[in-house]
Amino acid sequence: MTPWTKPEQTEEFFCPFCGGNEDSTPKETFAVRPDKTKPDARGWSLRVVPNKFPALISKGEVIRSENGLFLSVSGVGEHEVLIETACHSESLADLPAERVADLFRAVKLRTLKFKSDKKNLCVQFFKNHGMAAGASLEHSHSQIIAMPVISKQLKEQLDGAKSRFKELGRCVYCEIMEAELKTGARVISENLDFVAIAPFAPRFAYETMILPKNHSARYEETSNDTLASLARIYKDISFRINSLLNNPPYNMTIHTAPLNNNQHDKSFHWHMEIWPVTTRVAGFEWGSGFHINSVSPEKAATAMREVQPL
Amino acid sequence: MTPWTKPEQTEEFFCPFCGGNEDSTPKETFAVRPDKTKPDARGWSLRVVPNKFPALISKGEVIRSENGLFLSVSGVGEHEVLIETACHSESLADLPAERVADLFRAVKLRTLKFKSDKKNLCVQFFKNHGMAAGASLEHSHSQIIAMPVISKQLKEQLDGAKSRFKELGRCVYCEIMEAELKTGARVISENLDFVAIAPFAPRFAYETMILPKNHSARYEETSNDTLASLARIYKDISFRINSLLNNPPYNMTIHTAPLNNNQHDKSFHWHMEIWPVTTRVAGFEWGSGFHINSVSPEKAATAMREVQPL
Repeated sequence: MTPWTKPEQTEEFFCPFCGGNEDSTPKETFAVRPDKTKPDARGWSLRVVPNKFPALISKGEVIRSENGLFLSVSGVGEHEVLIETACHSESLADLPAERVADLFRAVKLRTLKFKSDKKNLCVQFFKNHGMAAGASLEHSHSQIIAMPVISKQLKEQLDGAKSRFKELGRCVYCEIMEAELKTGARVISENLDFVAIAPFAPRFAYETMILPKNHSARYEETSNDTLASLARIYKDISFRINSLLNNPPYNMTIHTAPLNNNQHDKSFHWHMEIWPVTTRVAGFEWGSGFHINSVSPEKAATAMREVQPL
Repeated sequence: MTPWTKPEQTEEFFCPFCGGNEDSTPKETFAVRPDKTKPDARGWSLRVVPNKFPALISKGEVIRSENGLFLSVSGVGEHEVLIETACHSESLADLPAERVADLFRAVKLRTLKFKSDKKNLCVQFFKNHGMAAGASLEHSHSQIIAMPVISKQLKEQLDGAKSRFKELGRCVYCEIMEAELKTGARVISENLDFVAIAPFAPRFAYETMILPKNHSARYEETSNDTLASLARIYKDISFRINSLLNNPPYNMTIHTAPLNNNQHDKSFHWHMEIWPVTTRVAGFEWGSGFHINSVSPEKAATAMREVQPL
């Protein structure tokens, strides 16, 4: 199937992300397309557009209010969709590494753009693949949200890393990588720039963490060559997960340092997380914040290592 | 359907929780049953048994180990299942209030039992109703887990409440209740002993929090009469959720103070949380720890208040 073939668009089936349907989305903010083509016309291989149903809106001021016990902040920020292919049936893991690199470079460019607006304190890039992983549209895409607050999850990671740094003067993620590479039991694969591990005490079965080998707090400072390397290890991990679990739904996120605040640059280390969705998170997990995971990270790493790579 | 009618048990359909199949579960640790009946025989209306596939095992010592960066604790604790009815097709919300009260009293008794073993630091009671909420068996049941650590979620609540208490000398949950009852905008219903609110900044649409009106940190110290009152407000809330959302899958949890540690008794306040499962939690939520919820708590409370009560 070439990128320009799309399923017949009928009243029952219409996909706003398919090539040829560019007018069903807001205007593109970035695209990878041949020089001769025009914005919002056919011809692109990657297209970034504002989310039509955004969680945060771009316009307006960030107002922090306190009503007695109840603190709130206005939902002002950015929410964009990265359409990873014009072809309805292609999935990210199947694209050539260079096109996956295009996606990761687009995430960098949009992060830099959002960083130029001081109201955005952090960005969250994420991908939901498959309905069970929360995707509302089947057509391959990911999303990026810029927020006027530091996310709860990022704050926990920043605080943990900062406290370890104060004690030992080292980035804890560098320490973890060193320890993991030494024993190898939880290492899944590596290349020149990245290592993929099954993290100690993972929430989900086959959860994978990809870390840049050289210390770096900021995804947006990663060179385009290094992002090509990230694309290669991402494809490698996806292939292993897909082979083992028969193309499961999955989620992917990137954690990167706050945008306009350098105080975590020595202690924090950006990283990507990928996990297949194999079970339902339920009352125990939401109640306790603990996760019951029946596959140990050592067992998961062994199984993933044993997959014959691409 | 009387409690003793059960679907025909065939090779394709066999339910270990149905009355008559008592020998398919581990031996009961507690039951509500007529005096003349024997343990693990027919005749019960509520039956508590160890989980056949426990997340934590009862035997063994709690060993805390540190392997360089990686801390762990042995999975020693308790994991029991509360079978809420002998009848396959009954659901908890449909039982008479007195039988729901039996369940809540059983949770109290098992909590007291687990508390007598000093290795258990906290308990988590929870219910998954429906497959989408994580229930692996259709037959109405809930679960209780005793753990050798304070759960992450409970620790966050304890720490937050403690810090507010240090500042103002008051329980923050008492403060919240007072503020909510004053404006009423997020109050769903109340009785003599409990108030049910749509909490400020809820994770899930129609999430509901039920709080005892009198300050109490410990669920296990609640009187049996007060637990009958809890059963009535639980049934009221379930009815409202079921009417509005057409019997959705849901989760329920109780947060209560650590078992053998009184330092939170003034600052913490036990409470129940109930939320229907209407969406899939996805990459953004797991990555950020924030939840996108399209129903404001004020709107949810209004809709729930407007349901004609039982």
